Amino acid sequence: MVSKDEMIAFFRSEFPKADYVIEGFTDNSVIVRHQVREQDLRPGGTVSGPTMMALADTALYVALLREIGLVSLAVTTSLNFNFLRKPVADRDLLAECKLLKRGKSLAVGEVTICSESDEAPVAHATGTYSIPPTPEDGR
Amino acid sequence: MVSKDEMIAFFRSEFPKADYVIEGFTDNSVIVRHQVREQDLRPGGTVSGPTMMALADTALYVALLREIGLVSLAVTTSLNFNFLRKPVADRDLLAECKLLKRGKSLAVGEVTICSESDEAPVAHATGTYSIPPTPEDGR
Amino acid sequence: MVSKDEMIAFFRSEFPKADYVIEGFTDNSVIVRHQVREQDLRPGGTVSGPTMMALADTALYVALLREIGLVSLAVTTSLNFNFLRKPVADRDLLAECKLLKRGKSLAVGEVTICSESDEAPVAHATGTYSIPPTPEDGR
Amino acid sequence: MVSKDEMIAFFRSEFPKADYVIEGFTDNSVIVRHQVREQDLRPGGTVSGPTMMALADTALYVALLREIGLVSLAVTTSLNFNFLRKPVADRDLLAECKLLKRGKSLAVGEVTICSESDEAPVAHATGTYSIPPTPEDGR
Repeated sequence: MVSKDEMIAFFRSEFPKADYVIEGFTDNSVIVRHQVREQDLRPGGTVSGPTMMALADTALYVALLREIGLVSLAVTTSLNFNFLRKPVADRDLLAECKLLKRGKSLAVGEVTICSESDEAPVAHATGTYSIPPTPEDGR
Repeated sequence: MVSKDEMIAFFRSEFPKADYVIEGFTDNSVIVRHQVREQDLRPGGTVSGPTMMALADTALYVALLREIGLVSLAVTTSLNFNFLRKPVADRDLLAECKLLKRGKSLAVGEVTICSESDEAPVAHATGTYSIPPTPEDGR
Repeated sequence: MVSKDEMIAFFRSEFPKADYVIEGFTDNSVIVRHQVREQDLRPGGTVSGPTMMALADTALYVALLREIGLVSLAVTTSLNFNFLRKPVADRDLLAECKLLKRGKSLAVGEVTICSESDEAPVAHATGTYSIPPTPEDGR
Repeated sequence: MVSKDEMIAFFRSEFPKADYVIEGFTDNSVIVRHQVREQDLRPGGTVSGPTMMALADTALYVALLREIGLVSLAVTTSLNFNFLRKPVADRDLLAECKLLKRGKSLAVGEVTICSESDEAPVAHATGTYSIPPTPEDGR
């Protein structure tokens, strides 16, 4: 498995402009932080749906790359979102992703997003990634 | 909140033919058991997708009625399923449902289904229920 | 592509007890009919969600096998449902499925379900199938 | 129903920085265009998933506001995406949204996204909006 430091270095190199912080790696989950910016807000002072969707997609990607390594070209094939509560405008969002399955060609994970210091989730997502065959697969 | 015994009595009365056992109520989840029958199987000895979908729908319904009471006419509005592994044909299925949100007019829950004695989930679902307004809402 | 008659013969042989009729094949869709039975009904005289889910899954399967042939072992990996209106209890359900993608290892389709003689859909589904590699793929 | 010109004026006023063009209104659908920009691209020259997700969400919003009027505060409650093909980096994306249901409190729509001049869809989405009660509802 990829270490947290390796993942941080990889993201810094590949996505230098990304507004995501790889915050934590536990035994079976990763946590990604997003600092909510002016452009993420909607009228009424809430965080836009696409901001949460992009964060969930990133958390899934981090959780998957941690398992399969940093070189593979995994592709999102489906994502499902439920928007549960209005996020707080002036707090960071934290996304925790657990992989439900890591198969040879498909991985599935779930993501729970909360506003910092709040336990009630603002959004929940499940997503599927297609993992391309690697030379070692003998295919 | 509805007690486990009240829920069991309600299901026995309303759905006398249902093949579901209300197995457990924890603080924040319910567990529903389904004994896999001959007609639930697919060629190759696995459990059919619709069997798991019906179980997930039931577990969501139990979790919701537990919160809102046994009289309301809640309606499923959306369901999302990920099928993760082949269930074992000769073991019961256990579905654990947690509510992610219980709003006034919408509730959202997630369900994890496992074959008994196996920790790796065979399916995961999220679902949304529409809760009709009650007279007490003053609407 | 598999012809309608070949598909009907295949289903009669493989799923002799299935309550589905392969009703139509158009250029880019298949239509599957389900006669609503007593056991498909819910209190209040509507058709149960799992009845519609099983029909959608079948329509997706027919649309996929039509493209990839009758021998492959395709597996549903994800399904998403929106329940739109109450189906009429005493009318057949008709499911029309169009494939959105037929890739090498994944196929995606969408299904619209109506009560017969009614244009407003009662349910809509999208689903993903994993297609196993075949010997001809050279893998 | 809101006219195309009214919708364009509304968007210009409410979302002055949005990179979306309300391109077409047909009897039962709306079409929204997004010009792909440098920041929408991923390594490898494809368009990012969040770019397509934000476009789908916008198309759903336009289709809904067209029906319910420009004043309501509708909220996305769930979104489901299937990513079908790689979009072309140097072409606009076009999203066509049809409402599947427009109920009192919930609306459901589906969105198909294509790269311009290409019929094969790059993504498909379904989404649900919660419509808040209005004073005229007498609630």
